[in-house]
Amino acid sequence: MTTATDFAATRAFFDLPEGVTYLDGNSLGPLPRAVPERLAQAARHDWGGKLIGGWNDAGWMEMPDRLGDRIAPLIGAPAGSVTLGDTLSVKVYQALAAALALNPDRRVILSCAGNFPSDLYIAQGLARTLERGHDLRTPPPEEVEAHLSEEVAVLMLTEVDYRTGRRHDMARLSARAHELGIVTVWDLAHSAGALPVDMAGCGAAFAVGCTYKYLNSGPGGPAFIHVRPDLAQRIDPALAGWLGHEAPFAFDPDYRPAPAVMRMRVGTPPVLQMVALETALEVWDMARIEDVRARSVALSQRFIDAVEASCPALTLASPRAPEDRGSQVSFRHPEGYAIMQALIAGGVVGDFRAPDILRFGITPLYLDEADIDRAAESLAHIVNRGLWDAPEFRARKPVT
Amino acid sequence: MTTATDFAATRAFFDLPEGVTYLDGNSLGPLPRAVPERLAQAARHDWGGKLIGGWNDAGWMEMPDRLGDRIAPLIGAPAGSVTLGDTLSVKVYQALAAALALNPDRRVILSCAGNFPSDLYIAQGLARTLERGHDLRTPPPEEVEAHLSEEVAVLMLTEVDYRTGRRHDMARLSARAHELGIVTVWDLAHSAGALPVDMAGCGAAFAVGCTYKYLNSGPGGPAFIHVRPDLAQRIDPALAGWLGHEAPFAFDPDYRPAPAVMRMRVGTPPVLQMVALETALEVWDMARIEDVRARSVALSQRFIDAVEASCPALTLASPRAPEDRGSQVSFRHPEGYAIMQALIAGGVVGDFRAPDILRFGITPLYLDEADIDRAAESLAHIVNRGLWDAPEFRARKPVT
Repeated sequence: MTTATDFAATRAFFDLPEGVTYLDGNSLGPLPRAVPERLAQAARHDWGGKLIGGWNDAGWMEMPDRLGDRIAPLIGAPAGSVTLGDTLSVKVYQALAAALALNPDRRVILSCAGNFPSDLYIAQGLARTLERGHDLRTPPPEEVEAHLSEEVAVLMLTEVDYRTGRRHDMARLSARAHELGIVTVWDLAHSAGALPVDMAGCGAAFAVGCTYKYLNSGPGGPAFIHVRPDLAQRIDPALAGWLGHEAPFAFDPDYRPAPAVMRMRVGTPPVLQMVALETALEVWDMARIEDVRARSVALSQRFIDAVEASCPALTLASPRAPEDRGSQVSFRHPEGYAIMQALIAGGVVGDFRAPDILRFGITPLYLDEADIDRAAESLAHIVNRGLWDAPEFRARKPVT
Repeated sequence: MTTATDFAATRAFFDLPEGVTYLDGNSLGPLPRAVPERLAQAARHDWGGKLIGGWNDAGWMEMPDRLGDRIAPLIGAPAGSVTLGDTLSVKVYQALAAALALNPDRRVILSCAGNFPSDLYIAQGLARTLERGHDLRTPPPEEVEAHLSEEVAVLMLTEVDYRTGRRHDMARLSARAHELGIVTVWDLAHSAGALPVDMAGCGAAFAVGCTYKYLNSGPGGPAFIHVRPDLAQRIDPALAGWLGHEAPFAFDPDYRPAPAVMRMRVGTPPVLQMVALETALEVWDMARIEDVRARSVALSQRFIDAVEASCPALTLASPRAPEDRGSQVSFRHPEGYAIMQALIAGGVVGDFRAPDILRFGITPLYLDEADIDRAAESLAHIVNRGLWDAPEFRARKPVT
């Protein structure tokens, strides 16, 4: 594989604990080495030193759009079409409310049963709040295309399934949806930073995503939202906050939306989280998303091959074809929970999703062949010898 | 004045720049001295060291409620009735949507012209989104009581006016509103940490507020929301996010609200901002809010007396009676903008609000008599000698 990305350098960008093989970056990315000092500096120098002046003099006010412009190329979106803030759930609400308003005569929100539950909850909460009889449909992922029709107002999907890693065909579903007059909302939580995304090419109306997975912004990092530029000016935001006002510091009593995607800003930007994100995004100065994807496919295949060869009790839950997968590999086992606890205890960190899924994030920015081999060996060791069958691994926290 | 609070110790808790007298803590509180190291530690030790395990092992998941319980006594609310997250604008949206749902047959939202514009924008955005003909009324602050009627669904006010520091009579307005079947929403942005608030006593349904002003959590710190305990169970949240689900990690496809105020959580908590907030709240281990208020009243009177005695061109914009004021003092002058720039250039930091208001936050946790005297002297010097009348002070950033 020829590559312009020096993966030894990207690995050195992160501070991974000694003895840990971390395959859970699809849930929370690891710490970029420079973050602690940058956070301390931002607090000491900018907040402590500039006080209220930081909003202008430290560039805090522009952070949401400046960092949006750094994320835009990773998702194939033009500059000025992405902004940041809030959590992904809030950004889903904003996008879905705006999408429904663009299709006021239709009453069906089409998603799928594989969507992240919070996206479905947000749709349920919005539908209840609107009281207009919107119907949320969640067919199995592979049946979504058959449910597209002129009844559907909005197609709202997460490109990559958080459990299986199954990937929707975003270009195809978007094209078909647009032919039927459906407004599209894509959640890129498991895509941004993991694989190339082509928002401009697929012509979808909205994209949202989080930054604490493959973009490594840390716990509670801000979410992003992209709006197709020709649509942005037509949106009257549901969450009409002062940072989305045309002139926040005019303190006008009436809301006037800011230009373009800036109207999707809501409240005061979370500056400390954005400092961590800004630091984390510097890895993209030395990494190309296409290289990351190619290496993720290679490492994933290596992992699947090794596990299938050594560990017959596990069943691949992810699609076998690389193009149908995101950047994670999942296996099923009825005792998946206990197996994962045993694996973590031995220093290989993945995670578990009910009822029986073991998830492994394959993140080439900081994982290499040796990590993959160690993970596969450890898994085979635990499963084949039944080492998971111990009280300390079987005891589960109640999820109520 | 007898006091249980050692204000020399609270002052030492903060790291204020040499030579600066900071009277803008009503906009952004200063840096607690321990924050830079605590942020660096949280990043290095918890995020870097525990990785995904931080959600349980570093207590990240409980932070919104744990810190809510620390804020609760400052606003006279019971434990378990306050949670944190998002921005104040999002919390206003949640509270207002829930309040309107509790009064479904009425169509008037009563606020006032002195409310912070973002609260009004949020009401406008929600009303447009609901499309049920809600009417937002914003009479002058002193006329709000006369506008209370059985037409009004929700009374939504900020206790302390961000420009003048004028304080609504929360107990009286709430009592009168409740007699008329009106649901009450109070924004405590300029109250929490500035003066005692008695949520339980006034019986209001909702309170919201930010933490980066008098609670010193830093730029973009999370907002809080309080729901009266007997109402919380009746709320079906508009922003139904997974962190407000009864069992977030069950990944249930249907939303079931968490108990009590926890249902007002939305998405993943902003952990780094919460670390700063948690550090900042430690000042309340050595400060009593009653003492802070008493000293704020004394320092405010000292400032008013000094400015009025030395600086006749300024007109007091704040109410004269301490009980009618929050913890800021405002003056008017037609050249207020330039005067404030000159003042800041000389190391006395307040701020300006259009068209003619000079604002000064009186924050005894880190200000003393010498600061007040210096600010008053500097102001008189600049105004009486016309030192503000220079191009560098008159040049304004456009607000468009």
